[in-house]
Amino acid sequence: MPESSTPLPAPTIAPPGGKLGVLCVGLGAVATTFIAGVELIRRGMAEPVGSLSQVGTLRLGKRTDGRSPKIADVVPLAALDDLVFGAWDPFPDDAYVSAQKAGVLDAGRHLEPIAEQLRAVQPMAAAFDANYVRRLDGENVKPERSKRALVEAIREDIQAFQEQHGCDRMVMIWCGSTEVHLDPSPVHADLESFDAAIDDDHDAISPSMLYAYAALLEGVPFANGAPSLTVDVPALRDLASSSGVPICGKDFKTGQTMVKTSLAPMFKARMLGMDGWYSTNILGNRDGEVLDDPEAFKSKEHSKLGVLDTILQPDLYPDLYGEIDHVVRINYYPPRGDNKEGWDNIDFHGWLGYPMQLKVNFLCRDSILAAPLCLDLALFLDLAQRAGMAGIQEWLSFYFKSPQVAPGLYPEHDLYIQQTKLKNTLRWMIGESQITHLGVEYYADDYLPQDD
Amino acid sequence: MPESSTPLPAPTIAPPGGKLGVLCVGLGAVATTFIAGVELIRRGMAEPVGSLSQVGTLRLGKRTDGRSPKIADVVPLAALDDLVFGAWDPFPDDAYVSAQKAGVLDAGRHLEPIAEQLRAVQPMAAAFDANYVRRLDGENVKPERSKRALVEAIREDIQAFQEQHGCDRMVMIWCGSTEVHLDPSPVHADLESFDAAIDDDHDAISPSMLYAYAALLEGVPFANGAPSLTVDVPALRDLASSSGVPICGKDFKTGQTMVKTSLAPMFKARMLGMDGWYSTNILGNRDGEVLDDPEAFKSKEHSKLGVLDTILQPDLYPDLYGEIDHVVRINYYPPRGDNKEGWDNIDFHGWLGYPMQLKVNFLCRDSILAAPLCLDLALFLDLAQRAGMAGIQEWLSFYFKSPQVAPGLYPEHDLYIQQTKLKNTLRWMIGESQITHLGVEYYADDYLPQDD
Amino acid sequence: MPESSTPLPAPTIAPPGGKLGVLCVGLGAVATTFIAGVELIRRGMAEPVGSLSQVGTLRLGKRTDGRSPKIADVVPLAALDDLVFGAWDPFPDDAYVSAQKAGVLDAGRHLEPIAEQLRAVQPMAAAFDANYVRRLDGENVKPERSKRALVEAIREDIQAFQEQHGCDRMVMIWCGSTEVHLDPSPVHADLESFDAAIDDDHDAISPSMLYAYAALLEGVPFANGAPSLTVDVPALRDLASSSGVPICGKDFKTGQTMVKTSLAPMFKARMLGMDGWYSTNILGNRDGEVLDDPEAFKSKEHSKLGVLDTILQPDLYPDLYGEIDHVVRINYYPPRGDNKEGWDNIDFHGWLGYPMQLKVNFLCRDSILAAPLCLDLALFLDLAQRAGMAGIQEWLSFYFKSPQVAPGLYPEHDLYIQQTKLKNTLRWMIGESQITHLGVEYYADDYLPQDD
Amino acid sequence: MPESSTPLPAPTIAPPGGKLGVLCVGLGAVATTFIAGVELIRRGMAEPVGSLSQVGTLRLGKRTDGRSPKIADVVPLAALDDLVFGAWDPFPDDAYVSAQKAGVLDAGRHLEPIAEQLRAVQPMAAAFDANYVRRLDGENVKPERSKRALVEAIREDIQAFQEQHGCDRMVMIWCGSTEVHLDPSPVHADLESFDAAIDDDHDAISPSMLYAYAALLEGVPFANGAPSLTVDVPALRDLASSSGVPICGKDFKTGQTMVKTSLAPMFKARMLGMDGWYSTNILGNRDGEVLDDPEAFKSKEHSKLGVLDTILQPDLYPDLYGEIDHVVRINYYPPRGDNKEGWDNIDFHGWLGYPMQLKVNFLCRDSILAAPLCLDLALFLDLAQRAGMAGIQEWLSFYFKSPQVAPGLYPEHDLYIQQTKLKNTLRWMIGESQITHLGVEYYADDYLPQDD
Repeated sequence: MPESSTPLPAPTIAPPGGKLGVLCVGLGAVATTFIAGVELIRRGMAEPVGSLSQVGTLRLGKRTDGRSPKIADVVPLAALDDLVFGAWDPFPDDAYVSAQKAGVLDAGRHLEPIAEQLRAVQPMAAAFDANYVRRLDGENVKPERSKRALVEAIREDIQAFQEQHGCDRMVMIWCGSTEVHLDPSPVHADLESFDAAIDDDHDAISPSMLYAYAALLEGVPFANGAPSLTVDVPALRDLASSSGVPICGKDFKTGQTMVKTSLAPMFKARMLGMDGWYSTNILGNRDGEVLDDPEAFKSKEHSKLGVLDTILQPDLYPDLYGEIDHVVRINYYPPRGDNKEGWDNIDFHGWLGYPMQLKVNFLCRDSILAAPLCLDLALFLDLAQRAGMAGIQEWLSFYFKSPQVAPGLYPEHDLYIQQTKLKNTLRWMIGESQITHLGVEYYADDYLPQDD
Repeated sequence: MPESSTPLPAPTIAPPGGKLGVLCVGLGAVATTFIAGVELIRRGMAEPVGSLSQVGTLRLGKRTDGRSPKIADVVPLAALDDLVFGAWDPFPDDAYVSAQKAGVLDAGRHLEPIAEQLRAVQPMAAAFDANYVRRLDGENVKPERSKRALVEAIREDIQAFQEQHGCDRMVMIWCGSTEVHLDPSPVHADLESFDAAIDDDHDAISPSMLYAYAALLEGVPFANGAPSLTVDVPALRDLASSSGVPICGKDFKTGQTMVKTSLAPMFKARMLGMDGWYSTNILGNRDGEVLDDPEAFKSKEHSKLGVLDTILQPDLYPDLYGEIDHVVRINYYPPRGDNKEGWDNIDFHGWLGYPMQLKVNFLCRDSILAAPLCLDLALFLDLAQRAGMAGIQEWLSFYFKSPQVAPGLYPEHDLYIQQTKLKNTLRWMIGESQITHLGVEYYADDYLPQDD
Repeated sequence: MPESSTPLPAPTIAPPGGKLGVLCVGLGAVATTFIAGVELIRRGMAEPVGSLSQVGTLRLGKRTDGRSPKIADVVPLAALDDLVFGAWDPFPDDAYVSAQKAGVLDAGRHLEPIAEQLRAVQPMAAAFDANYVRRLDGENVKPERSKRALVEAIREDIQAFQEQHGCDRMVMIWCGSTEVHLDPSPVHADLESFDAAIDDDHDAISPSMLYAYAALLEGVPFANGAPSLTVDVPALRDLASSSGVPICGKDFKTGQTMVKTSLAPMFKARMLGMDGWYSTNILGNRDGEVLDDPEAFKSKEHSKLGVLDTILQPDLYPDLYGEIDHVVRINYYPPRGDNKEGWDNIDFHGWLGYPMQLKVNFLCRDSILAAPLCLDLALFLDLAQRAGMAGIQEWLSFYFKSPQVAPGLYPEHDLYIQQTKLKNTLRWMIGESQITHLGVEYYADDYLPQDD
Repeated sequence: MPESSTPLPAPTIAPPGGKLGVLCVGLGAVATTFIAGVELIRRGMAEPVGSLSQVGTLRLGKRTDGRSPKIADVVPLAALDDLVFGAWDPFPDDAYVSAQKAGVLDAGRHLEPIAEQLRAVQPMAAAFDANYVRRLDGENVKPERSKRALVEAIREDIQAFQEQHGCDRMVMIWCGSTEVHLDPSPVHADLESFDAAIDDDHDAISPSMLYAYAALLEGVPFANGAPSLTVDVPALRDLASSSGVPICGKDFKTGQTMVKTSLAPMFKARMLGMDGWYSTNILGNRDGEVLDDPEAFKSKEHSKLGVLDTILQPDLYPDLYGEIDHVVRINYYPPRGDNKEGWDNIDFHGWLGYPMQLKVNFLCRDSILAAPLCLDLALFLDLAQRAGMAGIQEWLSFYFKSPQVAPGLYPEHDLYIQQTKLKNTLRWMIGESQITHLGVEYYADDYLPQDD
């Protein structure tokens, strides 16, 4: 059955209420910018720019109806005032100190006024293993050595946090560094072998998997902001489905890739052929330092290279997109700090094969782009859970470089298809009709047979 | 009624058959690149890259169905072999000479092999008036002085062409220069006053209106590739509707604006605020020379400036998009010839108001981007006429900087909404379901209440 | 006689001592950044980056001598501690308020700590005439209406300032806006007609000329940071010579033109042909607003367009540089404030005529680049006066877009020739040898006839 | 003694006459573009754009003298008609086939008309060793296996070529690929150990050294266009001096580094501090493929990174230039072929430390920029030899990324100092005065004590 009708009835959504605990794995630039921002917004000292859940609207009905309420007004999301933040980090700095070191936010305007609240966010000891993140080293690390013990320790952290803050519901977001590349293996194939591998302290089980596993066992939705495998293995996908917990990932789509997945659809829409796409990135933050490790870059490169394929569909258009030299480079370049810069060069051709070029220079801020994604994901995952939507939340593909999808489906990377999917899903959830942009009814007099 | 269902039954489409005459107003760089390209493609000497009608596919059914036929295989379009070309131009050069002067196509590879066919396209004398296109001057001009006589002369040209080439159907495409800016006036309000103004040789009736009027009177669909008013006045819109003739316009969306309407939706999708967008263009062809006249630029500027508004919806998002410094400049710069170059700088801000920048440098080829649009428009207008779809063809907005829409509707400028509209319209025309990208059915097991 | 020997004996330089009054015409972004910076540097709170007089060195002797003292250590310049600042401005804001409005310097770090000193710089009423600077309007304006009375009022200001602050010597620097374009006319040809024109309130005498005239009559050196004629007329040049007062101008070379005069010499050095150079600028400060007036832009455009000619020498190289499409545009674009941005595209060709392109994107800060030039010019003009060097100081061409030179000479625009001229002039002034970079002596054994 | 006087008498220059044999090591894109160009220029079919020796002028005397003859008119250079070309290459393609494969020159316009001449340039078998250039493999390789035998074979090639073409004089230019990085070692310290190492087939003796050694033994001047050590070792430098043969190198300064050494002096001239310089390159030719080998890139990176140091003098200016993050990347990117593209980002700061950025995008053509350098070097090396100037020719630094200089001297990388050095050396050679740009004599009346 085609997608234009809605094959499933709209879900029943339990109302939000009580506190929503938001647990960040990693309390670095992204997490502190997220947490500080929410605090400032609550006080009316700043705007939640970049957050669809806070600022966005949803067109309902016909173009001429003029009905475009704010999403937050028609979808039952948790209120910002109900969020409570916690975090793990291998560095012992509290959110205030960490934010200062990150240098993302203006200390005078955006940290001092909320220093007390930020200081209160003390990182729990991390389940950290330098074999998986080689360029970092921290002292705020759990003493447990076995993977099983670490899972249990994380579960206890979750329970303790929930109790301490009186949380009604929780979500967990991976805001940490990229781990070294791991290939999916039989160890991840089902829960039984996964569990056995934990007991064996198997190398194929990375720390991020321990966090995800603990979250699922505790019924806490999990979003993965890094390109690591983490929750994207059959064992954990099945557990999420069977235990009714929503999950999503991988790798926040913020800088260059966000632009790439906005521009690539243009070439495709216009059927312009592509010969090469060269992308280079310079960044000077902790993320850049970690990615200077070729093994960590391998995860990231994989995540960044894949996006063109499903947008351009080389199988469908071998002449246009069958042979693209797609190169992605990341360079650690300290002068910029958190201010990432991308430069893209695209070689394409048009009518009769004539070559043209497009170049994009993106001067962005890594954490400023990522923070509102954390907020949206926290609220939408919680929404999904209250709506009884378990397992992979493909409608949140919009936020990820390498979206998780159901087995057998290809991921949608086109930012605009992702946006349509997200908004039409929200419409479906609240019982509104799908938007197709057909709009022939506006021209009914012209289109109907004149002799009627 | 919302757009997701299809409020009108699919039309009956008469089969194509016989010759389709394609009349270009203007036989300069765009028209000759279009005509030469079709000839080369017919012979298998080049590919119709950039043409959705020739290369594009239409996904039908579910994502997992794997059903994506070529548009040309499921929509009854005229065949390339059935096209016959004619043109008017104030310069007497035939298509071969004009193409050489334009310098767009490689003479050795792409003009010599088809020299004979190109030489056969001799421009008919133009209804030209230097008061409306000031930087040009031509000698291949109709002797008639009154506007009424010019309309009649154009009609005779159409009839003669049809007879001479045995055309079954015709379309007319404005490929000429931009006229000086004209504001809509009472003269254009209805057919009666329009007709009276022609008899009065009123200044508000420009040559392009005479072509459009003649086309409609002859039952020939009309597409306007320039930003001039032309067929976008109530009198002619009504005539098109009442006489069953499809029309569309205005201003081919090729270079910088194509990119702008691909990128602006990204900022909007991610709810990033915008402070300014500065666009500058350098180009060295005849178009650049004409636009060096401030009055001609006024038309173009209007067309180029408008696109951000309906994409960003400042009324809906006054905080994000209420005050944008949008500057567009075009500079005549001969070194580039037809190779247009655009440079855009975008100042935007994210989370908590932090500023960022994005810059785009587009090294494109004006006529190479425009030529496939001419082809698509010729074929789709002919299709619409055979489907009984009269008047404004909003679904062809995809091709225009300043799309014509029904009174009371705002135009869609977002390239991706335009693409969705175009493709869903084609689906509707052939009786296929709309695509909404909802796709909840793939996750039915996870989303259905667990206790069922 | 060629320039390699020094045809004039080195001058005797009177030692600096006592206060040096620095009078700025205009107390906007440039002047306040200059004044605040000097105050911060005096206190050791910031570095005089960008100031040759403070940071630069002078290589003396052979490359192998290792003798490169700081300029300030071998050339008798006034000390920063001896500078006293005054200014005229049509707006009544003191330097503290004006600097805050300009938004160039960080208020917390760079204005608050010296607020008291900045508040003390109160602008004297300006000799302002809105006919010459159309986009501005101020209330802090001298009541005198006749040009003669204005000259006298400015002279009184100078005398009063000198007396009040006990200045030993003074310099005046035009830091104000660009006036509308004036062509040199017979009125400016000699002092007699100039004087008569002042008495007649002739339109050809602009306010900036009144300041310059007053300065010269008071024996105060004058530097012109704007492109207006001002002191670049025979009457005032002669007066400067005959009264022993150094002068220099025109138009601070800071942003795009600084880069242009650094890059154009590369093409020339390598004998690469040039087809076009397109430069566009966006800026959002008061300067940008003033230049939005086409008449003011005319002055600036003239100043900006001229630089390529003497660098590329089209007379000497007609094939390479005889036909260049050189386009310069400036656009007022508020989002940037004082942060000017330039984008340049250069079309050039090499071996056998093959075309290439170079593009430069300059994200600079107008006043940050101009402020150290003010400091250098103040100190070097004072030095010249103490060295008995009257009239045009061509060796300060380094600082100007449109350098004043002796009648009959072409100006040097090449930044590196200007630098060589400046540094070799300093060497000459202190009795050191000229640097030619010949350096054959290092290879004497290889070069001398082997049979010696 | 300072450099401003000329410490050595001008040399006596033997007149050119007879044929000059030009032997290229490598017959790829650069060499064929060079050879084809000279042939086209001889026939008046193209211009020697980019060649100082052919197009450049030399200002003689005062600025007001108007004396700027062409270099070729005052310096006794060999005539283009007297050049005869030979080459070695591991691929057996003649110059015609190789040029076609390189794709640099337009086949129709620039190869066909001289096909016969190009076919006549058949590559001699190369002294090739895949251990030193890993990504290439060729079949046109000398059968000799020992390094000694290879030296002798090259010498025989030289002698045979000279005899066959009746050359009066010869020069050799390395136009081949970059070899893997070699560090200078004791083996290269003097001729004795160098000779012994050849006999031992020592790894520290690369093929390029064999060519250079053979050239010197035959009295043939040698220029090194690649960054490999080659002739830049004490043993060969001494041999060049003692046998009266001029040498120069290393690494043609063409694309990004040419721009870098033109722009870096601007920051230095204006005393602007530098924080970082990020350079990335994309190129798709054989050179790009070779540099994809990290060992080959090591040589190139070393050559490219060094240039900033002597321009910016961090020892002299530790605050401004003591800590620069200088990153250089090269990426093999086939879509561009020989059309290299560079993107540079420079982070710098000015007055009081405020940060600014400059970005350069260079769309160049590798071989088009290199070919005229080959011509100039051939002619200038021959000139030097006729002038009795043996050993290192530092005045040719202008052409190299990593100029060879006398032991104890730092190299000059500033393109403008290099240009001054080159031109003042030519002036010295023909007995003309040095240019210093002092020019105080034009202002003698103003500068001389007024009371004289």
